[in-house]
Amino acid sequence: MIKQQRPRVLAFDVFGTVVDWRTSIIAQTASFLERIGHGGLDPAAFTDDWRGRYLSTMMAYAASGRGFVPLDQLHREMLEAMLKDKDIDPGALSDDLLVDWAHAWRRLAPWPDSVAGLTRLKRAMPIVTLSNGNVALMLELARHGGLPWDAILGAEVVRAYKPDPRAYVRTAEMLDVSPAELCLVAAHHTDLAAARACGLATAFVARPMEYGGRPAPDADKRQEWDWDATSITHLADLMGC
Amino acid sequence: MIKQQRPRVLAFDVFGTVVDWRTSIIAQTASFLERIGHGGLDPAAFTDDWRGRYLSTMMAYAASGRGFVPLDQLHREMLEAMLKDKDIDPGALSDDLLVDWAHAWRRLAPWPDSVAGLTRLKRAMPIVTLSNGNVALMLELARHGGLPWDAILGAEVVRAYKPDPRAYVRTAEMLDVSPAELCLVAAHHTDLAAARACGLATAFVARPMEYGGRPAPDADKRQEWDWDATSITHLADLMGC
Repeated sequence: MIKQQRPRVLAFDVFGTVVDWRTSIIAQTASFLERIGHGGLDPAAFTDDWRGRYLSTMMAYAASGRGFVPLDQLHREMLEAMLKDKDIDPGALSDDLLVDWAHAWRRLAPWPDSVAGLTRLKRAMPIVTLSNGNVALMLELARHGGLPWDAILGAEVVRAYKPDPRAYVRTAEMLDVSPAELCLVAAHHTDLAAARACGLATAFVARPMEYGGRPAPDADKRQEWDWDATSITHLADLMGC
Repeated sequence: MIKQQRPRVLAFDVFGTVVDWRTSIIAQTASFLERIGHGGLDPAAFTDDWRGRYLSTMMAYAASGRGFVPLDQLHREMLEAMLKDKDIDPGALSDDLLVDWAHAWRRLAPWPDSVAGLTRLKRAMPIVTLSNGNVALMLELARHGGLPWDAILGAEVVRAYKPDPRAYVRTAEMLDVSPAELCLVAAHHTDLAAARACGLATAFVARPMEYGGRPAPDADKRQEWDWDATSITHLADLMGC
């Protein structure tokens, strides 16, 4: 690992890096499938399908030409498309139920080290979100898990989804720091590579259980990142916090 | 006072409501005037002039047709204009000094009840900023004073300065609540009246020392607000927090 000056600001990817989306979405999806009379469907497969659709939507968003809409709404659209693929008519379900199910992504448990690590890092530097989750989602998630952000930034605030370069550059501008003074903390090589291409510093946090133990879709994109940690508390150790 | 249901989210005006800008800016301005060899100028008059220019800039911003620029930059422009009015050439001063002086607005002390009151309210409801201060300014101010915001929202995030109605309406949208579920907390009747016109709930916090004991410029605009408190801790009492 390269010895590095401490960044001015830390910007965190959240889904997978700070919170364990898969365990939480599987548990909630199992309960929703039960409620709609489809308890026989596999909630883990459903969850992995949802995440897969999210990843391809994000990678293609800038090129799609679609105006910015909050992630809550995209989650809802993906959910309805998945239900239709399973011959379940979302039109026959109540709007409240569909909203609540799409909002499962607002209720995800932090990894065990996240709150302790963030709390230590926050003493030394501002810690902000740089997530594709919209503000209302991130706010509820932070209160749900006790995540002590200094500010909630990211896609909705800068009107661009990662890995669109504008998401990183505009966040640095809004923080009034140069890209090099801003460090993205993420468990995903794709995200870190896009941030590095914009001049940001990069901190990798390994989350081997993000996909239930299977390799992450971008596992082959590993590079030597500026910081390389096994947890957020480990990152705090490395940064001397 | 009308008995009210507790709001879903509390959005705070910050300058004057949560922090005492006048005392802090006078002290810092006295030091800057000394440094540039104009210690004979009255820092209180200079500060009141700055605030007056801020208020008139904000009231006229939407009509001015100027694109959105962060408040830090407007503070700098006002500062340079004030110096010129006193026959001081800002071009003869270092850029670092001018930035630092304009950033005096990032370093303001909270009123004595602010941190305790916000901490109590935050247990029951999300507390966010709805200030004309830009994100970098608000972030530094929060860390300077220990203000425990759940999120930093406001003018820069929604690209409109209060009292432009878009500042209030878009903030509610971003929080995914109806305007009626969002309560503006402010020491200023003008701000509260604009929020009420957009359908927001309103909470007044009296800050009789904001202008050093003289009446606020909008003192004659008093209405019966949904909540009426003498401090943020008193507001927490009224809201049962």
